Amino acid sequence: MTPAAAVDEAEFRARCRRAQALMAQEGLSALMLTTEADIAYLTGFRTRFWESPTRPWFLLLPHEGEPVAVVPEIGADLMGRTWVEDVRTWPAPHYTDDGVGLLGASLSDMVPAGGAIGLPSGQGTHLRMPLDDWAALRERLPDRRFGSDAGVMRRLRMVKSEAEIALIAAACATANRAFARLPEIAAAGVPLGDVFRRFQILCLEEGADRVAYLAGGAGRDGYTDVISPASNRALEAGEVLMLDTGLERGGYFCDFDRNISLGPASPSAAAAHSRLVEATRAGFERARPGATASELFHAMQAMLGSGTDGAKVGRYGHGLGLQLTEPPSLHPDDHTVLAPGMVLTLEPSVELGPGRMMVHEENIVIRDGPAEWLSTPAPDRLRTV
Amino acid sequence: MTPAAAVDEAEFRARCRRAQALMAQEGLSALMLTTEADIAYLTGFRTRFWESPTRPWFLLLPHEGEPVAVVPEIGADLMGRTWVEDVRTWPAPHYTDDGVGLLGASLSDMVPAGGAIGLPSGQGTHLRMPLDDWAALRERLPDRRFGSDAGVMRRLRMVKSEAEIALIAAACATANRAFARLPEIAAAGVPLGDVFRRFQILCLEEGADRVAYLAGGAGRDGYTDVISPASNRALEAGEVLMLDTGLERGGYFCDFDRNISLGPASPSAAAAHSRLVEATRAGFERARPGATASELFHAMQAMLGSGTDGAKVGRYGHGLGLQLTEPPSLHPDDHTVLAPGMVLTLEPSVELGPGRMMVHEENIVIRDGPAEWLSTPAPDRLRTV
Repeated sequence: MTPAAAVDEAEFRARCRRAQALMAQEGLSALMLTTEADIAYLTGFRTRFWESPTRPWFLLLPHEGEPVAVVPEIGADLMGRTWVEDVRTWPAPHYTDDGVGLLGASLSDMVPAGGAIGLPSGQGTHLRMPLDDWAALRERLPDRRFGSDAGVMRRLRMVKSEAEIALIAAACATANRAFARLPEIAAAGVPLGDVFRRFQILCLEEGADRVAYLAGGAGRDGYTDVISPASNRALEAGEVLMLDTGLERGGYFCDFDRNISLGPASPSAAAAHSRLVEATRAGFERARPGATASELFHAMQAMLGSGTDGAKVGRYGHGLGLQLTEPPSLHPDDHTVLAPGMVLTLEPSVELGPGRMMVHEENIVIRDGPAEWLSTPAPDRLRTV
Repeated sequence: MTPAAAVDEAEFRARCRRAQALMAQEGLSALMLTTEADIAYLTGFRTRFWESPTRPWFLLLPHEGEPVAVVPEIGADLMGRTWVEDVRTWPAPHYTDDGVGLLGASLSDMVPAGGAIGLPSGQGTHLRMPLDDWAALRERLPDRRFGSDAGVMRRLRMVKSEAEIALIAAACATANRAFARLPEIAAAGVPLGDVFRRFQILCLEEGADRVAYLAGGAGRDGYTDVISPASNRALEAGEVLMLDTGLERGGYFCDFDRNISLGPASPSAAAAHSRLVEATRAGFERARPGATASELFHAMQAMLGSGTDGAKVGRYGHGLGLQLTEPPSLHPDDHTVLAPGMVLTLEPSVELGPGRMMVHEENIVIRDGPAEWLSTPAPDRLRTV
C-alpha cells in the first residue's frame, strides 16, 4: 500500500485549510506537531520507523500557506513522496544540534515576534521530542509564545472523512473475519500465549497490515482485567476467553473485542454477556448527532444495573482512527457533542465478582440520523466452541 | 508469558539500587518516569495498552527506598502483580485532575523543598504526559527543581544483564528462523504488501510475541530507503528484497535485516552485499570493551570505501533492548565507551546510485574479549531464490 493510499492530496489540503480556519479563531500563528498521528493526519506520512525513539520529527503549519516538514535525512525520501513540498532535513542523530536549529529557524521565519505557536497539549497528547531540546527551542525563540493548540488538532481529527471511515471499516471487516475464525484457535488446553500468537496470524491472513494491539483474558466467570499480555496458562473448559484487537489497515485502526466460551458458559458469564450486548445496543440507539458522549455513557449504564459504574475501566468507549484510542471518551464528564463522521467504540464493562469482569466492544460511526455499525454486532447469546 | 518472566524481583531491585547510586552522584532526590520502556525496566510492567494514548502512567523512584507507581485504575491489577508494592491509582480519564494531584502529592512527600527531580531528557527520550499537565505539575511544586536525569536511565539501560541478553537472543533466534523461511514467501510477482504480511506471519509462527517493526524495500540495484511501509507493487525477477524486523519476545527486541535476490542478482548488488557483510565483520572485530561507538563506525566505514559516509541513514548501528533502538549510536560523534553487556546492531549501508541503497544488519553483544553474535551472521554471498 502506498502511504495513505485512500486519502488524496485534495483531502490533505482541505484538512490544512480547516486547521488554519480554527487557528485563526484561536489566534495561533503556527501549529507545531511532533507525533505520528498528528503528522500523518496532515501529510499522509506513514512509516513504522516511529517505533525507533532516536529521531524527532516535526511538522509546522503556518496560519496561511503550506506546511513545512522538518525531518531527519533518513526520512527525506519518504516525506518527499507525500504532498508536502517544503521538506527540510538535518543529518540525525546529531550530537550538538539535533534539528533544533533548523526547527527554530523555520519557526522564526514563519511566526512574527509575539506570535503564538500552538502544540497539542490536552488529554491523550504528548510532545515527542527530548525535554532538553524543547527547552533549547524556547530559549532560541524567547519572543514567540509556545502554548496549547487550543484543541485544534483534537477537533479536526475527531470528525472523520468518508475516506477515513472507509479505512476504519476495512480494518473492522478484517477483524470481523479473524474473530469468525476463533474456533480454529481457541480450545481447552491451549496456552493463552499461543492463542494470542495465532490470533495475530488470523488477522494478518485476513488482511491486516499489522496487529498493533491485542489484549485479552480468560476465566470461568470473567477475567481479571482487560490490558494484560498473554500468560502461558492453558485455557480450561468452561472459561470465557476475551480477545480485544486494534489491527491496522492503511494507517487506520479498528478496536473491538469478542468473548467466546470454551464449552457451556457459566450462567453468570452468559447473563453478563447478554447485558453487555444490550448495553451496546442502547448506546447505539442513543448515538445520534447532538447527543453527548456523556449521554451515551449513561444510556449504556442504565442497562448494566447498579454496582457497576465503569470506574475500573474508566469509560464505556472512545473515539478511534489513526490511533487506537482518540477523543471523545464515553464518560460521565465528557460532554463532547456527537457529530456525523465521528467514529466511536461502544465498550461497556461489568464486574461479576471480586477481580472478575467482562467487557464487550463494538465500533460505530455517527451519521445523520441513526448510527452505523462498523463491526458486525455480536448476538446477545455468548458464542460457544 | 507472565510479565517479564525471565527477569526476577532481585534483578528489578538491583536495578533500582544502581539507579539510586547514580542519583546520589547526580544530586537527584527522585526520578520521574513516564514511558513504557523506562517503567518496564524498573518494574517489569508490560502491556500493549501503551498503544492507547489516553492515559498517562508514572513511576517515581526516590533516592532511597522503594519505587512508587502512580497509575490509572485500569492498570492497578496488572501493576499490582509486579514487585512494586506502593501502587497509587486514580480513576482515569479524569476531566479536572488526570493524576496530576496524586503525582504532585507523591513527589511532595518524596522530595524535600529544593530537591531535584530528574526526568530522562536527552536524545531519544520524551515526556509521555500532556504539556498542560506537565505545566500544572510544576506549578503545584514550585520549590522542587524539575530537570534532566543526567543520563541515569540511559547509562543503566545501556548495559544489559544476562537475563536481558537471553531475551534479546531469543528474539534474534526467532527472527533467524523466520528469515530462513524467506524463500517460502518471496518470489517475482508477489506484491510487496503480501510479502510484509506473510513475513509477520512467519515471525509469529516462529514464536514472536508481536512484530512491532517491519520495514523493507526492493529494487534491481538496491532500494530507495529503509523506512518505507510496503507498497503493493509486485516484486520482479532480478530485484533485491530487504526485510528489516524488530520482533519482540518477553518485552525485548531484536533488530536486524536480510537481503535476498529474486533470481541472479545484478553484479553491483552482489558486490554491495559482500562489502556490507565485510563491514559488519570489521565492526564485530572492533567491538571490544574499551572501544568506542565512534570507532566501530569508522571500522565499518573503512570497508565501505569513499563516497559513502552513512549520512543518509545517519549511523551504522545502535543499541537495542526494551526498545527497537537505544543508545549508543555507531556514529562518528558518539564516543560512548563499550562495556560488557551492551547489545548493539551493526548496520552499515551503501549507496549504489542516486536513490539506490543497500543496508545489512546484525545483532551482537559486547563480552569480555571478543563480542558474540546474537543474530546468525549472514554469508557474504547474497542469497538467491
